[in-house]
Amino acid sequence: MTDFQVTILGNGSAVPTTLQNPTAQMLQIGHHRFLIDCGEGTQMQMIKYQVSRKNLSHIFISHLHGDHYFGLIGLISTMHLYGREMPLHIYAPESLEEIIRLQLKYSETRLKYPLLFHVLQDAKVIYDDNRLEVSCFPLNHRIPSWGFVLREKMKERNLRKNFVDRYAPGVEQMHRIKQGGDFALPGGKVLKNEEITVEPPLPRSYAYCSDTAYDEDVVPFIQSVNILYHEATFDDAMTDIAAEKFHSTARQAAQIAAKAGVGNLLLGHFSARFSDVDHLLTEAREVFRNTLLSEQGKTYVIERG
Amino acid sequence: MTDFQVTILGNGSAVPTTLQNPTAQMLQIGHHRFLIDCGEGTQMQMIKYQVSRKNLSHIFISHLHGDHYFGLIGLISTMHLYGREMPLHIYAPESLEEIIRLQLKYSETRLKYPLLFHVLQDAKVIYDDNRLEVSCFPLNHRIPSWGFVLREKMKERNLRKNFVDRYAPGVEQMHRIKQGGDFALPGGKVLKNEEITVEPPLPRSYAYCSDTAYDEDVVPFIQSVNILYHEATFDDAMTDIAAEKFHSTARQAAQIAAKAGVGNLLLGHFSARFSDVDHLLTEAREVFRNTLLSEQGKTYVIERG
Repeated sequence: MTDFQVTILGNGSAVPTTLQNPTAQMLQIGHHRFLIDCGEGTQMQMIKYQVSRKNLSHIFISHLHGDHYFGLIGLISTMHLYGREMPLHIYAPESLEEIIRLQLKYSETRLKYPLLFHVLQDAKVIYDDNRLEVSCFPLNHRIPSWGFVLREKMKERNLRKNFVDRYAPGVEQMHRIKQGGDFALPGGKVLKNEEITVEPPLPRSYAYCSDTAYDEDVVPFIQSVNILYHEATFDDAMTDIAAEKFHSTARQAAQIAAKAGVGNLLLGHFSARFSDVDHLLTEAREVFRNTLLSEQGKTYVIERG
Repeated sequence: MTDFQVTILGNGSAVPTTLQNPTAQMLQIGHHRFLIDCGEGTQMQMIKYQVSRKNLSHIFISHLHGDHYFGLIGLISTMHLYGREMPLHIYAPESLEEIIRLQLKYSETRLKYPLLFHVLQDAKVIYDDNRLEVSCFPLNHRIPSWGFVLREKMKERNLRKNFVDRYAPGVEQMHRIKQGGDFALPGGKVLKNEEITVEPPLPRSYAYCSDTAYDEDVVPFIQSVNILYHEATFDDAMTDIAAEKFHSTARQAAQIAAKAGVGNLLLGHFSARFSDVDHLLTEAREVFRNTLLSEQGKTYVIERG
């Protein structure tokens, strides 16, 4: 079974504190790594928590508030200094490329590896391989902001060994059966697909919504994911401030989780004003039981089903 | 007696390690604070080491390699979010303003305080009050790089109390005597200045040279400072690489310290390849005895004389 896990590198909001670094999280899916957001100090957090950047091929930046990308230029520079040659793809709002290239220009840095920017401008698939699909979708924030959802693809059905041994189906027949087809015997009898195959493992999925106001428009994009990371900057008492600042309360995050029917909700992007966020968990759990407070340095395994 | 001290926030070089953050240091002189360089994570280091940014009015950025300024935009943003109103002066190579303003623009941040950029382009005084003078001078690096020297001004001589009590000099006479003048008695006898005054306390001074190749041209600027912070990226075995990369070895830093007749030499900007830098201290001390390895989080008091 392939790994599918996320390590929280930072779960704070706009200003860092003794407890919280700005936002970043590393997904490891099989031998691939994907970074979502890259606040200041992300590369130090990776060192601290021993999170490798090996096979980090794609970085997804949600929006251009600094607590979500100020660490990117440092990470890009460090990978250059360590001799990276593998291309790096960055998906981000349009202006990030200008910001990064300007800094490379004035330091007279000619990167040793290809740095490829892709502009987020519509909800669509932004990464696709034979096992995994990553899509972006719009959030509702003061400036354009994007959520991300990573979904494993449904695998083909598995042929039962005793069926293959007994009937020795041809290559094309096997292909059709794996797609759900039945098998017709020479005499006209039909073996139903479910008799001759086994369900493939359930695909796993993870979604990221930060920063955003409460917005039900995200629900179709994140439907039924195994883990939803949703921002919970504020508490119930600050519901008005949350709306005004285009952020969410913990309870609102839970409402989105409930509407989307997700497996587990992981709260983050906590306001620096809270030295303790236990009450956010209490408020969220009143709406959605399977809620956790994200913890920096902790790795969450995305389980099937 | 007024404070004059420097706290090392980061003394690493281009890439951060578990031991070293990129360059930054905070000077506290009386109630003023001055920041020299601001590598990524500087604001977190300030939190970690409880270094206040109160009365931080001036930031001096040596050059536009990222390990000396990538943390600046984060610090600027944080001070904005905490409601700073006091102007902030930044002395830096020309292009830094473009880099910072571009990032503020795309995050739609309208700073609540005046951010005033000043371009470093000649060796000159860049800060001057009644007690202190700060000057910049060119270093020798791959891109334009600046050193800084902070010197207290010599105070006026102090009148001896018994002289004032006995002769009750007038205001103008007192002024002349404080400047070094003698005092003529009515009968023609002259009281020499050294009989009627006391030496003022010796002024203190601190200089910063990073990043730079070995270059004796800096010596006149840093002559006799109490503490010289000089980069020591490499060791003796890497003298050729140091020259090629426009950096210094620890021994070269000590040679500059000796030529400038400084009080103490503080080494920093250590290459990430060294897990231990004790041999840098040994090599430097062969040339200049009063050498120390800078330590992150440590405060060095600049003593008189």
